[in-house]
Formats: sequence, C-alpha cells, structure tokens
Amino acid sequence: MNPDISRERENASFNLEILTNILDGGAEKTRRRREIESLVISDPDFQHEDLNFLSRSERYDAAVRKSAQMILKLREYGISDPEEIYSYKSCVHRGRPEPLDLHLGMFLPTLLNQSSPAQLEAFFMPAWNLEIIGTYAQTEMGHGTHIRGLETTATYDPSTQEFVLNSPTISSIKWWPGGLGKTSNHAIVLAQLYTQGKCHGLHAFITPIRCMKTHMPLPGVVVGDIGPKFGFDEVDNGYLKLENVRIPRENMLMKYAKVEPDGTYVKPPSDKLTYGTMVFIRSMIVGESARALSKSCTIAIRYSAVRHQSELRPGEPEPQILDYQAQQYKLFPLLATAYAFHFVGQYMSKTYHRISGDINQGDFSELPELHALSAGLKAFTTWVANAGIEVCRMSCGGHGYSRCSSLPDIYVTFTPTCTYEGENTVMMLQTARYLVKSYKQARAGQQLTGIVSYLNEPQSRIQPHSVSSRPTVININDLASLVEAYKFRAAKLVEMAAKNLQAELQHSKSNEDAWNNNSIDLVRASDAHCHYVVVKLFAAKLSEIGDTAVHSVLSTLALLYALHGVALSSGDFLQAGLLTVPQLAQISQRLKGLLSELRPNAVALVDAFDYRDEMLNSALGRYDGNVYEHMFEWAKRSPLNQTEVHESHHKYLKPLRSKL
Amino acid sequence: MNPDISRERENASFNLEILTNILDGGAEKTRRRREIESLVISDPDFQHEDLNFLSRSERYDAAVRKSAQMILKLREYGISDPEEIYSYKSCVHRGRPEPLDLHLGMFLPTLLNQSSPAQLEAFFMPAWNLEIIGTYAQTEMGHGTHIRGLETTATYDPSTQEFVLNSPTISSIKWWPGGLGKTSNHAIVLAQLYTQGKCHGLHAFITPIRCMKTHMPLPGVVVGDIGPKFGFDEVDNGYLKLENVRIPRENMLMKYAKVEPDGTYVKPPSDKLTYGTMVFIRSMIVGESARALSKSCTIAIRYSAVRHQSELRPGEPEPQILDYQAQQYKLFPLLATAYAFHFVGQYMSKTYHRISGDINQGDFSELPELHALSAGLKAFTTWVANAGIEVCRMSCGGHGYSRCSSLPDIYVTFTPTCTYEGENTVMMLQTARYLVKSYKQARAGQQLTGIVSYLNEPQSRIQPHSVSSRPTVININDLASLVEAYKFRAAKLVEMAAKNLQAELQHSKSNEDAWNNNSIDLVRASDAHCHYVVVKLFAAKLSEIGDTAVHSVLSTLALLYALHGVALSSGDFLQAGLLTVPQLAQISQRLKGLLSELRPNAVALVDAFDYRDEMLNSALGRYDGNVYEHMFEWAKRSPLNQTEVHESHHKYLKPLRSKL
Repeated sequence: MNPDISRERENASFNLEILTNILDGGAEKTRRRREIESLVISDPDFQHEDLNFLSRSERYDAAVRKSAQMILKLREYGISDPEEIYSYKSCVHRGRPEPLDLHLGMFLPTLLNQSSPAQLEAFFMPAWNLEIIGTYAQTEMGHGTHIRGLETTATYDPSTQEFVLNSPTISSIKWWPGGLGKTSNHAIVLAQLYTQGKCHGLHAFITPIRCMKTHMPLPGVVVGDIGPKFGFDEVDNGYLKLENVRIPRENMLMKYAKVEPDGTYVKPPSDKLTYGTMVFIRSMIVGESARALSKSCTIAIRYSAVRHQSELRPGEPEPQILDYQAQQYKLFPLLATAYAFHFVGQYMSKTYHRISGDINQGDFSELPELHALSAGLKAFTTWVANAGIEVCRMSCGGHGYSRCSSLPDIYVTFTPTCTYEGENTVMMLQTARYLVKSYKQARAGQQLTGIVSYLNEPQSRIQPHSVSSRPTVININDLASLVEAYKFRAAKLVEMAAKNLQAELQHSKSNEDAWNNNSIDLVRASDAHCHYVVVKLFAAKLSEIGDTAVHSVLSTLALLYALHGVALSSGDFLQAGLLTVPQLAQISQRLKGLLSELRPNAVALVDAFDYRDEMLNSALGRYDGNVYEHMFEWAKRSPLNQTEVHESHHKYLKPLRSKL
Repeated sequence: MNPDISRERENASFNLEILTNILDGGAEKTRRRREIESLVISDPDFQHEDLNFLSRSERYDAAVRKSAQMILKLREYGISDPEEIYSYKSCVHRGRPEPLDLHLGMFLPTLLNQSSPAQLEAFFMPAWNLEIIGTYAQTEMGHGTHIRGLETTATYDPSTQEFVLNSPTISSIKWWPGGLGKTSNHAIVLAQLYTQGKCHGLHAFITPIRCMKTHMPLPGVVVGDIGPKFGFDEVDNGYLKLENVRIPRENMLMKYAKVEPDGTYVKPPSDKLTYGTMVFIRSMIVGESARALSKSCTIAIRYSAVRHQSELRPGEPEPQILDYQAQQYKLFPLLATAYAFHFVGQYMSKTYHRISGDINQGDFSELPELHALSAGLKAFTTWVANAGIEVCRMSCGGHGYSRCSSLPDIYVTFTPTCTYEGENTVMMLQTARYLVKSYKQARAGQQLTGIVSYLNEPQSRIQPHSVSSRPTVININDLASLVEAYKFRAAKLVEMAAKNLQAELQHSKSNEDAWNNNSIDLVRASDAHCHYVVVKLFAAKLSEIGDTAVHSVLSTLALLYALHGVALSSGDFLQAGLLTVPQLAQISQRLKGLLSELRPNAVALVDAFDYRDEMLNSALGRYDGNVYEHMFEWAKRSPLNQTEVHESHHKYLKPLRSKL
C-alpha cells in the first residue's frame, strides 16, 4: 500500500461503510452487491483479458463468449431481480456495453409488453432460450430522435396475409441498433404501416433477418456491422436494409394496434402506452451519469493523492498534486456533482417505480411531469458528466491519456448517452415545452402541483429588482437559501423565455418559428430548472441522513455544489437580483474555504463509492496507490512489445539508409 | 453534388478565394499549399488505407512506411522550407502524428542548436541520413511539466571519460517520448548531471539505445512501447530504463555547458538559450487549435446543411438542421472562434519570427512577454478548441460518434495539446505570474509596454462602479467598445487576483502558500487576459482586410465571438460595472440576430478553410454532401463484415441453445 494513500484514509472524518450504504440504498443492498461482484470476479469463466490489447473482432468475440456464459450462470444461480441482473452483467462486462444488451434490455421486454397472447406463445420462450436473438431496430441512417420521420415501410398484402418490409431510400437503412450487425437473427423493426392504401404511422414488426440454421442473412436482407466507433468496440451496432422482405401478419406486435386478416386497421386504445419505457430508460441514464462521474473522480482523486509534482515551498519535497488549489477546484466540484447525481438518480428510480403502478392501471396523470423531468435531467446530467469525465482525465496529466488509466474508456462508453435515447438539446426543448405550458397555466390562474409549483408564486417575487430596493435573497452559507435562489433563477428564466416567445409571436410566421427563434432561451430555462431540481434533491437527501459525521461531510459537498453553480452562472443570479456584486467576492472566498475543508476527506469520499479495482480497471485509480509499478507491468504487455524489433524496421527504415 | 449544399454555396455573399488567401497568408501561399497537397494526394506511394480498419501494429507499420517514403520524396523534390515540409508531412499523414515526428522536430533541431562543432560533425549527417534515428527523452513516469524534478542521472566517470546513465527509481523511467518505443536507435536523454560529487542540474546526452546493426536494445537499456492510448495509434510512444549505461564524454551536448575531461564543469553563458524552442512550439500549438477547430466546424456545418430532421412547420418537409437556432448557437460561435484562433496563430508565428532574430543575437528583452503570452494562449486556445471539437461531434448526432465522421480522430489527436508542452493549468499560472509582476510594476509607477500596458491605466478606470454612478462602457454593437470592455475586465481580474494575493500573505506561511491559495483567481485573471488578446487581435485583423464583402462577414464573426464571450462570462462584466442588467437581454437578442445573419454564409465560411476531402477524411464533412452513400460504402468495408457469419456465433451462441 502506498503510504500517501494510507495516510489519506487515516484522516477521514466519517465512517465509510455508512456512506456506502446510503449510496447503495441500504446495508443489505451493499452486502448483496458485493456478493454478486465476488461471484463474478472469482469466477474463472470470467477472467478478464485486457481489451485494450485486442483487435475489434477479438473484442467482439470475447464479449459474446462472456455474454453466453453470463446467461448460463444467471439461470444457474437463479438471479432474476432486474437490479441484481444489472449488477451481475456490469460486473461481467466491467461496465461496458455488450452484444446481447438489446436482446435482454429491449427485445425481450418489448415482446413481453406489446405481444398478443398468441405472439407471446410463439416468440417469447425461443427468445428467452436464445434460439431467437433479437434487437430493436428503430433508428435509421436519416432519422434518430424524430421517430415520426422514419421511412421504413411495412405494407400489408391481404392476398398472402403478409407484411412486405422495405427500405425505400438509402437514408431509411436501419443504422446503429446494438447486436444487429452480427449477433441477432431477429429484429423488432419499427416501420410505417400501410394497409388498405393508408399510412397508420409507426408500428413494430418481428422480423427474421438471419437463417435459424446457418445464421446467413435471409433473402432480401442486407445486414452488417456499421464499422468502428469512438467506443463500443464490443458491440456490433448494425445496419439493415430490407428489400421486399415478407413476414406473416402475425409478426406485427398486436397487443394494442391490430391489422385484421382483410387489412382492416384497429387503432390502439392510447398512444401513451409505449411512453413508460422511454421515461424509464432516461431516468436510468441519470444514474449512469452518476456512476461514470464517480468512477472518474475515484481515479483522478486517488491518483492526485499519490502523484507528487512541482514545488510549493522551496527545498521541501514535491507535494501531492491534490494539495494544489487548482487541482482541488477541478476535482472537488465534480465529486460533489457525482454525489448530487447519485441522489437524483435514486429519486428518479424511486419516482418511476412509484408511478409505474399507476401507469399500468391506465392512470397517466403524473406521467407528463415525470416525462419532462426525465428528459431534462437526462440531458442536464449527461452533459455535465460528459465534460466532467474529461476534466478528470486531463487532471491526471499525460497518464490520463493512456488506456491504462481507464478514463478514455469511461468517456467513450459514456458519451453516447448525450445522443441516444433522445438527443440532449431536443430533450431540453421538451422540458422547456412543459415549463412554458405550466407557466401559462399558472398565469391563467391554475394552481400547479409538483415540481413546477414554483411557477405559481406571485409575479412580484420573481421580477428583477434593483439591488438597492430589496434585501438580498441569498445567504451564501445556507443551503436552503441557495435552493430558493436556484428556484427564483429558474422561475425568472422560464418567465423570460415565455415572454420572449410571446413577443416573437408578433413577428413570426408561426408558433413553430417563434419557438425556434427562442430555442436558446428555452434551453437555458430548462437548464436552470434542472439545476434547481438537482440542488433541491441534494438538500432534501441531507435531511434523511442520521449519522452526524456523514451528514457533515455531505453538507459541505452540497454547499460546494450549490455555490460553485452560482459562481459559474453568476450573471443569471445578478440579473435576477438574487445576488449582489460584493457577494460574488464572498462566494469566491467561501469556495476556497470549502475546498480546504473537503481536502482531508477527498480520498474517503471516493472510496465510499466502493468500486473494486477489477471494476475500475485503472492503473491510476488503484486502491493501493501503487500506480507506476502497474503502469510499467501493463505497458510491457502491449502488443507492440511482443517482439523486440518491429518488422517495419527491416521493411522500411533499414533499407532507407542506402537510399539517402 | 447534394442540391442542399449547392444551394448553400450559391447564397454566399463573398468571394471564397479572397478569404482563403487571407487565411493562408497570401495568394501565393494558397497556390503552393495546394500544389503540395496535389503532389501528395496524387502520389500512388501515399495511397491512404483507412486506418480505422487496421490493428495498432498495422497502423504503426503503415505510418513508418509512409514516413520513410516521405523522407525520400522531400529530398527528391527539394522541399526544405519548414512550412512546406509541414504541409507535405501533414498531407502524407493526414494531420496525424507519426513515428519520426520527434526525430525531425526535436532530435535534429536539438543537435543543430546545442552541439559543439565536433558533435555536429559526428552526429548530424548520420542523423540527417536516418542511420541515427533519434528522439527527445525528457518526460519521466513521475515527472512532466516540472522538469527540474526529473530523476534520471548522468554521472561523470573521469577514469574512463564516460557518463554513466541511470534510472534510479521506477518513477524515473523515461515515459511518453514519441518514436522511443520501437523506432529510434538514439535518444537525447535529459538527465541530472553529476560530476566531481556535485549535481549541476539538467543536461542533454546523446544516448545510443539500440544496436545500429540489429536494432536490438543495447546492454543496460530496457526500451519498449508504453501501450495503447486514447489516440496516437501510429506513434510508438515509449519507455526507457537505463541501467549503468555508459556513453563517451563527447555525447553530452556541449555547445553551451561543458564537462572537461577531468570532470570540471563549465557553466553555460545564459539559461535562456533553450527557452526559444519552447516558446516557438507553444506558439505553433495556437495554430493547431485553429486547425482542429476549423476542421471540426467544416464537418459539422456541412453535415448540418444536408441533414434534415424533425419539423419546424407542420406538414412541410423536414428542415436542414442548420436552420435550428439551437444548432446555430452550438456551431457559429465555434466557427467564429476558429477564425479568431487562426488570426491569433498568424500573429504568434509572425511575432516569434520577428523577435527570434533578436534572441539569436542575445537580446532577450521581448522574450518574457512572448513567453507569458505563448503559455497562456496555448492553454486558452487548446481548452476552448478541445471542448469545441466535442460540441461539433455531438452536434452531428449519433453519426458524429462513428469513426467515419473523423471527429473522434480529430479529438484524440488534438486533446493531448492540453497537456503536452506544458500542462494547461501550469501554463495559465505562468502567465498569471507575469501579469501579477507587471501589475506590481505599474503600481510602483513603472511604465509598462507591450500587451500588458493596459495595467498602466489609472486605477479609477478599473475600479468597480455602481451601475448608476457612471456611464456604461459597452456599446454592444461596436467591436472597439467590446475590446475595451474585455480589457477592463482583464485589468479588473488581474487586480483582484493581485489584491487577494496581497491579503493572503498576511495569513500564509509563505509566498508559495499564498500563491497556491489564490490559484483559482490567478487562472481566472490569465484567462481574461488571453480572452482580451484574442478579441483584440481579431479586431485588429479586420483593419487589414480590404475586400468589403469579406470584411463584412468577418466583422459579423468577430462581433459574434466577442458578444458570445460576454454572455458566457456576464457575471464578470456585471461585476466590473461594464455592463448593465438590461444590456444582458439586448445582448441575448443581438446574438440571435447575428446567428441569422451568418446563416447564409455558414457553408462558404467553412469552405474557405479549404480542406480537401482527403484531408478531412470524413463521410459527414464531404464537399459534395453525399453523406449517406459514403457512410454505407465505408461500413461495408468494416473488418467485422469480412465474413457474413462471425466465428463467435458457432463458438458460443449456437452451442448455448442446447444448454438452456
């Protein structure tokens, strides 16, 4: 054990295990998570090769092997709780996506939720037993988030009682679905349904794409891998071009909408039925943001505790880089953010489960708010975490750029969340639509409930004031006061966006133009709303914590999170009259104080995330702090070191001498 | 040609060629650059394989092959002007780093500049003819930017007239030098010189590391590749561990410092002699920031002109995504930034060349200012460009994440600039040191010259004022007024940092502690200073431009750059009393107006950067806009598509069926 990092741990002011239990949602959950992790990590079938040293084809191969093993073991151990499956799976694949993700996470659930009883009978068990391996083919080359624009067609032919599937244009080729390229033999294809000469919009079709015996593509099916990406090397994201592919009428998912044998279309009872999954996945992504950021902070903060560099005082030994204020200023606000997002993720998961019962009963009343919140928070948290991972990487100097740090992998695995499951800017604008609508309702005298209820508060409270005419709202040492300030800032920005929208309507050709011409303000309002929600939920979480020492350190983190945000957006708070110019300097001093307060607990606060070395897979983030030895060992295994002299020397460099 | 993108080009309000010439530094330079590009691109020896489809070893191999060819051709064509060599090289390697970079860019120049005449005689021609291939081994596993901390030792043994080189600790292993792992047979090793029992600090030693015949590592030399990184796959960044490696006395570079045969140490006449190269490289990185960002903008803006998505007006065709205000707000400020950085890069290059003559004559008077400026601007521009590339990537939706977009490659190739040649935060603090020193000199009544002369201006001008007591400084439509505002903001933040530093000295144990405890303020002051310099140089460039139409569009870009920066840091400008709250809303409206103004010229403005398709290597950024066809063609060539059925299907998935 590196003595620097041992000393850090001795300095911690709180009991680690209590905090870990809070993060896991209880001591029993911590115990069970660890049990599952040990099960996987001690399993010789899951011994982990270093993926960085393999070619893409080898990485795909290794992932398929582990996924197949995983299916067997999950059944063997009888692990069936979704959270436990998630734990097991992310341990097997060390947090990376894998080729069966869409089979397990989309194909099977969609079959379950949208099949008629006859379809369940026909498809579910073969899929459960991996005879049918499926994916969910929605995105096309030309269309992502705007799914109404999808071009794939499914035209009903009553003469044979079949649907004829086609990719009519190059932009209509299905593109991106995970597991589509090489792994799957079926796909749930989202296509525009045509019957009796009419288009009825998007519907889902179970489409065989490869032969169940030979695994060769079926006639009319052009399928393959879309090529290398920034990350996701283990996944065969694929393309699918359909040329007059015929499938039986029974392959349209018919729990809700139906096409009868003669081609008569029967509408679904509600269009909100497929809404829930989307909301669920976006809510889960908030938790992913917390995990990606907390892993990155763990690596960067542990490394900063053992890395010595430069000098603070002449003649003295080089200090740990964690002692530099500039380093603390990079990392501690991100650490606070990781905690904040973790608690927001818990809230989203709890809220989703609370109201999903209602949704299944057909009560959609809380869905719009959750939909708006999940869209905005998905965007807000992924953007912040995305940038934060890179700050962590760069805070490790050159070594962060090495694959042995794991930080590049965390980044490329995480960054697609800014785009998939709803492009972030589009998500922010969806939340803005809800906020503007709520604002108008409040102005019209309607009493709002839930998280937007602050828009009810009297106009006068949220109008700008000149600094002199009213008392300052913010007490910079009081979290509750800061929560209020974030609230008023959000209210102010929602109001500004709504008023600008109103004003724009005088000039614009249409509502849509006015909306587009105010997108900047609308995104900004959503962002402020989400920021308010995060600060508020972090503050709320504190009230649940009984342990004094843990409460104290989390309070410091929460205050840091809130004040750091105020400092970054100080213009907004000044503009809203929530802050005075002299307070800015006070905040700046207070932030420095909070960094110093957190310094002794920094390593303990990342230890509490409780990532095993096998999960972090980072030479820099090792628990024992023995960084350099492990970097050296790792480098020696690099493929370029398999021979002392690379063949290119003999082929090109040696012959060059005689030519010059 | 995609009709959308043709239409964009028809709408341009200015003559493209005039702007391209301005960017190149004259029509003749444009002509010559294009000539060189054609020479390389039409050369069958440089036909470009898609590196994304190759393993790392194959990529290294391909790069060595091309580098060897390149050396032959440069001599054949007699290309010897450094700028032209740069053009040729970046065209051969399509802007990527290559294994001989350090031989050409560091080893040869260091030999030239620091060798005694006898050493030049002995080493230069063999190195010029690539018998000796060398690298520059400075960075160690434990030490980067803080070079005084390097641990490698070179101890003089007068009995044999040799230096004995050692890596005494694991952290002293040389780590990162490009070309060190497999390519080089020599390295200039930076080591602490010990002679006659005394340490004389860092000196440079020409160290043979591999046998000139067999290319095997020499006795006592442990050398290899440091393993895969985020990017730089073509480069064998290496490690080097030295165990009692003996080299002749004559291998210490002795143009300045010397060790005589008996071990007597002779000091160099000045310690500033090695300063110039560092300043030069940092200045060049400013230009790299401009190039990386302008390539990214080219890809994102062209793609946004051909990508259609969602709906603005119900029933109408899906609009080009470039018509969305939110998309414009992501891309146009970055486009403006790319232009700004391009002009700053030109300025830095010009200034360096202007004063490098003086430096060679021993006149170092202008060096401190250029040193401070190059450090700060290197950090400022690389951070902004680094984040900007990722904004460009994400603005392309999912397809930006595909390697066929080239955006991931641009990012991983560029992002190390934030760390190498001086870690960015350290660079910012170096600039801050110069600013604080200058501030103190001005307060002491000294008259400052050069770019910091604004710190001379009377105190009263830069003290905060209550908004009511003085007229607003900013005219938001006048670039000159905005330059002034940036200047006052910088002055204000430098003053704040200096005053906080002064106050801190009352409590701190030492100057160094006080400095560390104000790093946040100091970095912020540097940042504001650099931002001012960029705005000022952009404005200055406008005055050189004669063509009315080009002047007009660049003025719009400059205003957008300046106002966008004010909006992002509005707190600073409000705090300094340079802006009123009502003006914030005006700025926000004006920004929207500027986006609309730029919209018709957006594609022409990226076309003017004049990147050939072969250089961009991006399916999304193609000049002809035929994106989807080329994505599909590219994907079909993916290694995973070499067989219809991947072997993992037979190995793991098929057998699984019988086990479940």
